[in-house]
Amino acid sequence: MIQTDVLIIGAGPVGLFTIFECGMLKMNCHVVDSLDFVGGQCTALYPEKPIYDIPGFPEIEAEKLIHNLEKQALPFNPHYHFGHQVTEVKKEGLHYIATTSKGTVFKAKVIIIAAGCGAFGPNRPPLENLEKYEATGGVNYLVRTKEDYRGKKIAIAGGGDSAVDWAIILAEVTEKLYFIHRRDKFRAAPESIAKLRKLEGAGKIEMVIPYQLSSLKGDNGKLKAVELADLDGNKKELNVDHLLCFFGLSMELGPIANWGLNLDKTHIAVDAATLETSEKQIYAVGDICTYNGKLKLITCGFAEAAMAAHSAYNYIHDAPLHFEYSTSKGTPGN
Amino acid sequence: MIQTDVLIIGAGPVGLFTIFECGMLKMNCHVVDSLDFVGGQCTALYPEKPIYDIPGFPEIEAEKLIHNLEKQALPFNPHYHFGHQVTEVKKEGLHYIATTSKGTVFKAKVIIIAAGCGAFGPNRPPLENLEKYEATGGVNYLVRTKEDYRGKKIAIAGGGDSAVDWAIILAEVTEKLYFIHRRDKFRAAPESIAKLRKLEGAGKIEMVIPYQLSSLKGDNGKLKAVELADLDGNKKELNVDHLLCFFGLSMELGPIANWGLNLDKTHIAVDAATLETSEKQIYAVGDICTYNGKLKLITCGFAEAAMAAHSAYNYIHDAPLHFEYSTSKGTPGN
Repeated sequence: MIQTDVLIIGAGPVGLFTIFECGMLKMNCHVVDSLDFVGGQCTALYPEKPIYDIPGFPEIEAEKLIHNLEKQALPFNPHYHFGHQVTEVKKEGLHYIATTSKGTVFKAKVIIIAAGCGAFGPNRPPLENLEKYEATGGVNYLVRTKEDYRGKKIAIAGGGDSAVDWAIILAEVTEKLYFIHRRDKFRAAPESIAKLRKLEGAGKIEMVIPYQLSSLKGDNGKLKAVELADLDGNKKELNVDHLLCFFGLSMELGPIANWGLNLDKTHIAVDAATLETSEKQIYAVGDICTYNGKLKLITCGFAEAAMAAHSAYNYIHDAPLHFEYSTSKGTPGN
Repeated sequence: MIQTDVLIIGAGPVGLFTIFECGMLKMNCHVVDSLDFVGGQCTALYPEKPIYDIPGFPEIEAEKLIHNLEKQALPFNPHYHFGHQVTEVKKEGLHYIATTSKGTVFKAKVIIIAAGCGAFGPNRPPLENLEKYEATGGVNYLVRTKEDYRGKKIAIAGGGDSAVDWAIILAEVTEKLYFIHRRDKFRAAPESIAKLRKLEGAGKIEMVIPYQLSSLKGDNGKLKAVELADLDGNKKELNVDHLLCFFGLSMELGPIANWGLNLDKTHIAVDAATLETSEKQIYAVGDICTYNGKLKLITCGFAEAAMAAHSAYNYIHDAPLHFEYSTSKGTPGN
């Protein structure tokens, strides 16, 4: 069990600045993120996009901002736990015990949720018994190695770059490859589409258009076939060993939704003066929190991080906080 | 009369970022500051101090931060009015009419006060009829040119660098120079104190220690003498033409205190959700505002600027605001 003053959920820009603000108030932090790296959306979705509304930066690339924030947090020795989702949180005396999807357990005086729009995950098709087939690898949303599909019959569903690119790569190794899409138009690079059409012409890929997934068939989670339907209700069944779905990424609140916090739609309601949730010692900052007047701006998330840290201070330290400016106090090593 | 969407009072870091946030929402700004330059305290008091708690800057000098913020505001063509204090504000229909100390008049739909700790000014001694002697130049807080004092009898009061340095310079030209200080200790560079003592030894400066100012004597504002007292009540009178006081800078709310806004001590109470004061269309952001949970951090002022601009939008534009990220919208020229 890892003991910490503060457990921060989310290592996006606001989570990173929360480490800094906690550090300035002598509170140490462990940080959990479902991604494998810092930066949240900034790194995962638009690393090279310029951001114009960070105060003091007329223009900064998302990735560079994250790099700076990581560096700013560094003097406070944060401990990062990547690829974890916090799945369970329970109160134990004056502490919270938080358990992650990988079984790591934290004992924290304070939890600060900076989870943005929630955990990233693949968009999943609304099919019966989907989980059963996901568990056996019958249905998948990513390709670990193309060797998994050598000599297999597979279906790929989707119409974007991922679907098209993986179809081109996997057609080299599969026995049979069906490409399912709801319309005869793709959101992919023209040269990739041309390659796809060429493989279709060579009989390496069979296009199944315009169809959508309607059900999964199999035994004990072992996938045997996918059933499709078109808009007129015409059905079609494809015998396959695997279905690969590429429907883009979704962001969802995930397990946080079940922690008993007051939620306002998919946001966590907080006290605007402290950023504390309906549960004492649990805070929410950044895009995931909501209060009267809330703006989803990184700049506002930074201010919220400062306010949450100042409020959390009272749960962690006995002595009252004497306010000092960073120009007087400095940072460790400065 | 100058018409503007927004009149911003104060060109410190938060005032500068307010220009940017208003600009992003297509609201043009005029900015008034009592100083002769942008940056407020950052520029006036600690330009070379490193600040550590601006998000994305592990360390930045105050002056550099101001430079960046000025550059970030530039695409929105702000109009600066330096050396002005807004002395009067009155409502006229749907607008505010604001008049400055130099007689400039603004007609603004919205006023955003980002005045920090208030206007800077010299600390003034608590003496009867002080204003009368200030008006004639009998009492002064700065030296425009030493020629003003050639052949004159003057008294300098204070114990810091300014008092000591000006005494050394003016002793060259005055007929008589008294140096008044309440104790025999100075907060000045040792070599300056040595020079002062040397001039005292040479009879160029007469030290009057430990004394404090107790009253001013003269005719129709023309200064004739200053009366001093020590802690035991012993009095002394010095015949002088001018008194120069160097007691440091003070910050005061100034005329804003008389605009009928709800004040909480020397701060302006605002609605935390909008940053609007008790008067509709008048906002306050940054160190001058107060609400439940308020922290006096530049970072929080930046977020407040964004929230005030978003709220003010409704007074200026008819159409509702559609939220867009800066990464999508860009800035003028980007």
